Amino acid sequence: MKGIGTSPGIALGNVLVYKEPEMVIEKKQVADVDEEIERLDKAIEIAIEQIEQLYEKTLETVGLKEAKIFNAHKMMMEDPEFIGDVKETIKSQGVNAEWAVKTIADKYIKMFENIEDEYLRERAVDLKDVSNRLLKILLGIESIDLSTLNDEYIIVAEDLTPSDTAQMDKEMVLGFITEIGGKTSHTSIMARTLEIPAISGVKGITNKTKNGDFVIIDGKEGLVLLNPSQEEIKTYKEKKERYEQFKLKLEDMKGKKSISKDGVKVEIAANIGTPKDVDNVIENDAEGIGLYRTEFLYMDSDKLPTEEEQFEAYKIVAERMEGKPVVIRTLDVGGDKDIPYLDLPKEMNPFLGYRAIRLCLDRKDMFKTQLRALLRASAFGNVKIMFPMISSIEEIRKAKKILEEAKEELRNKNIPFNEEIEVGIMVEIPAAAIHSDIFAKEVDFFSIGTNDLIQYTLAVDRGNQDISYLYNQYHPAVLKLIDMTIKNGHKEGIWVGMCGEAAGDEKLIPILLGMGLDEFSMSSSSILKARWIINNTSKEEIESMLDEVLSLPTAKDVEKFIDENILA
Amino acid sequence: MKGIGTSPGIALGNVLVYKEPEMVIEKKQVADVDEEIERLDKAIEIAIEQIEQLYEKTLETVGLKEAKIFNAHKMMMEDPEFIGDVKETIKSQGVNAEWAVKTIADKYIKMFENIEDEYLRERAVDLKDVSNRLLKILLGIESIDLSTLNDEYIIVAEDLTPSDTAQMDKEMVLGFITEIGGKTSHTSIMARTLEIPAISGVKGITNKTKNGDFVIIDGKEGLVLLNPSQEEIKTYKEKKERYEQFKLKLEDMKGKKSISKDGVKVEIAANIGTPKDVDNVIENDAEGIGLYRTEFLYMDSDKLPTEEEQFEAYKIVAERMEGKPVVIRTLDVGGDKDIPYLDLPKEMNPFLGYRAIRLCLDRKDMFKTQLRALLRASAFGNVKIMFPMISSIEEIRKAKKILEEAKEELRNKNIPFNEEIEVGIMVEIPAAAIHSDIFAKEVDFFSIGTNDLIQYTLAVDRGNQDISYLYNQYHPAVLKLIDMTIKNGHKEGIWVGMCGEAAGDEKLIPILLGMGLDEFSMSSSSILKARWIINNTSKEEIESMLDEVLSLPTAKDVEKFIDENILA
Repeated sequence: MKGIGTSPGIALGNVLVYKEPEMVIEKKQVADVDEEIERLDKAIEIAIEQIEQLYEKTLETVGLKEAKIFNAHKMMMEDPEFIGDVKETIKSQGVNAEWAVKTIADKYIKMFENIEDEYLRERAVDLKDVSNRLLKILLGIESIDLSTLNDEYIIVAEDLTPSDTAQMDKEMVLGFITEIGGKTSHTSIMARTLEIPAISGVKGITNKTKNGDFVIIDGKEGLVLLNPSQEEIKTYKEKKERYEQFKLKLEDMKGKKSISKDGVKVEIAANIGTPKDVDNVIENDAEGIGLYRTEFLYMDSDKLPTEEEQFEAYKIVAERMEGKPVVIRTLDVGGDKDIPYLDLPKEMNPFLGYRAIRLCLDRKDMFKTQLRALLRASAFGNVKIMFPMISSIEEIRKAKKILEEAKEELRNKNIPFNEEIEVGIMVEIPAAAIHSDIFAKEVDFFSIGTNDLIQYTLAVDRGNQDISYLYNQYHPAVLKLIDMTIKNGHKEGIWVGMCGEAAGDEKLIPILLGMGLDEFSMSSSSILKARWIINNTSKEEIESMLDEVLSLPTAKDVEKFIDENILA
Repeated sequence: MKGIGTSPGIALGNVLVYKEPEMVIEKKQVADVDEEIERLDKAIEIAIEQIEQLYEKTLETVGLKEAKIFNAHKMMMEDPEFIGDVKETIKSQGVNAEWAVKTIADKYIKMFENIEDEYLRERAVDLKDVSNRLLKILLGIESIDLSTLNDEYIIVAEDLTPSDTAQMDKEMVLGFITEIGGKTSHTSIMARTLEIPAISGVKGITNKTKNGDFVIIDGKEGLVLLNPSQEEIKTYKEKKERYEQFKLKLEDMKGKKSISKDGVKVEIAANIGTPKDVDNVIENDAEGIGLYRTEFLYMDSDKLPTEEEQFEAYKIVAERMEGKPVVIRTLDVGGDKDIPYLDLPKEMNPFLGYRAIRLCLDRKDMFKTQLRALLRASAFGNVKIMFPMISSIEEIRKAKKILEEAKEELRNKNIPFNEEIEVGIMVEIPAAAIHSDIFAKEVDFFSIGTNDLIQYTLAVDRGNQDISYLYNQYHPAVLKLIDMTIKNGHKEGIWVGMCGEAAGDEKLIPILLGMGLDEFSMSSSSILKARWIINNTSKEEIESMLDEVLSLPTAKDVEKFIDENILA
């Protein structure tokens, strides 16, 4: 069976199918109605306890936003109307609690599902979750608890929620196979971070396997071998061995420089989302942080984060990186992310809308608070400031003017900061790449954000399943824009980095080296491999192939060329 | 007062404020309840008659889709629940019909307005419209009827719906001033088509003016002069005179060639939406049709248009253009336009979604039906086929393959068509412009669609009020893409046109001429002016300025350069 490989590596092991148990609910008449209601009340009590524990655990391991889901669940469990209806059904019909819960929950779920409004419709999912929990308690069914596995397993599931993965005992999980999800789903990102092989998009897998089946997965190729032959097991054990030895070879890359075969030095940096991620950055010996996303401060909160809160979060990262560059991106949110207290407009095309620098220039106080916090952190390390979603020179000038005001305010209060702090922009809107010859005169560095750049250059929302096949980082038009941006940056004497997913793509790293990219920023788990590739590639050799690569007709041709002429 | 000039020209005249009359509804006790109900029934009867007339008129002058609004209104007027509640209120409280209608309608409207679902919320607007109609009939209030004006007026309104403008007596309307709307609103497009000066976005105008006020409007500058001085009236009468003389000079352009001062010949063509528009095309002496949008066939219908229906619509245009080029664009719809029978998915970012060629390649039968109709029409004139939203070579190849199949099917049935029919693409996605050197090898022509190209290049949804200020056709990155596309097309020996709004922009026409654009396609009303500009511009002179223009930092700099060095 084949799926989408979402986290590389090979695993061999026994299957644990993680799915909701089937529940058979029979209608029974009960003799003592009061006793039945008491049984229900006890089950509700247990459910609330479980939910509260989930809240605490999720708060700790994932974040406030995800934890809040369980607050909503608790409220449902305490909802007098819902619970009242269930009790009324037990009383008036003299039926068992299971039947009453099921009947009333189904009625409510159906009602929610028929509402056209998306928000209300989603409540049906929560209610289903809550009522299933209650039914399981009443029926004495125990679901698989991923937090206390007694053996090593490859988990097979329709889908895994962030909460599922957050609770999981990471020592016992050898790999994931899911029916739903792609490379950018929560589960896939989590799997890559934990370096666990994972495969998504394997339709029907939960029905085709059962607990105890032996399975091999190849997370790079997206392959699933169910109940393999002895020979296959042998082959894959060897492959796994080789992969692990390669990983050991990668370990050797720690402490080494990122320098090409022909002596060109580049910087391999990491992308992070919170200060907690720095552990992984240091563990993988990154030479800096190329993208520190600051959204978490705004999304995990009920109100705007204060200057002090932000300062602390930036300062700790700057300090821990001990003088290595830390590029911090100013707030990048918009209409597609729900931050209630920002009161963002609903938009028809949020990706082409009021977001990132557009929002920040409009909400100057909020923006200046962040800039002051960033400046203050610059006294504690090598902090650089980066503005996202720049499409015009005017935006750069406006943002820099507000930055100057923030500096002046700090000066007046004698608060130290780096007067020479570098200021750069994300090159992620086609206009910025196309006009990069002129943009380069206004900033200290560029960082190419390929994820958005590809979306706009190809007019493709990669989250849209009907057309995501068009999203392709090997599209020659995209490569031309990247090449143009690097060359134009160098002409003005500024450095050019990349912090989109393409920077960590094995096939593209040689091409980007050939184009002259100075800094590659990626997820921490890709760093050593990238360094290994750089150390085994000659910049000059690739450079001599670029004209040919950039005039290939299609993305497929580009990929084929790389496979045959560079990686082979 | 200043607004957005949406249709050029100067008008002087008396104001007619078109607004819903204020209605005072008093609660009265009625002696005879049955008589009151009879009065209500009669009013309902009259309302239904009015609505049916509106349906017929709109169907005739605008289209089925708009007319359907009135079908929905009729259903509301006949809704037993709504009308039942009103009658019940009259009976039980012994009140007048107006009060009962108002009370019940308000209750329903409030209910609709509080629903989060957008579709249902919009029903509140319809119900308000319907109940106001009923109340006006009951109260004997007559609203202004735009279809039977007894004198010439400048219409002042908060907003005008397509139905308002469709019903209007065009002879008596000198101009429009509205509070809401921009350059691309229905009213603005209508005004330009009818060559009536119009200004949008004049906040508070409906309260600041009253019927009989004298007003001057300058549709080019977006200026409104309320109760002007004698001197101002004199100045603007002269201006209007000059404008009209210039229009006469433009009349002289009819029958002339579109040829620059230094002898470079270009083609000035028209954009059309339906066969009816050809009258205007011929009237304005266009040298061809550069964009024939085919969406109307799909949107004004309850089902997919047949091959025969399409053939007729294409053939008549081909025939009437008598051998002049007619570029017909294949279906360009997507998730933001509601064509119920196509069952399109709801998308988070419809502009980056499943639309145009992406949809057509996926629904091959529908696409091939259109291609056969287009091919058949090519036997009756100089038809060329154009594919929209092309982002990759693969899409061109797939579309051309389906076209070959359609040709083969016609050959097998001995149905005549032009075997040498030209096939081109819209260059409206940045990737197509950036990779145009390679795309040019696969097609017979390019037509640059600036409206979308600007949106994607700048990552701006121009319909989004919060950020539409960023949408700018003078952005140097956009001009670089246009220049690149023209040069790359010419290198492969194909012609390059433009069918976005920029092609008709007075300031850009000289620049585009300098870049070497071969065909300018625009709304019919701009054609003669464009020809006049071409005839008064030297291509070589502009060409020598291009390097400077393309390296200016901002859109403002570009506009200033054009104003000072080209138009001055």
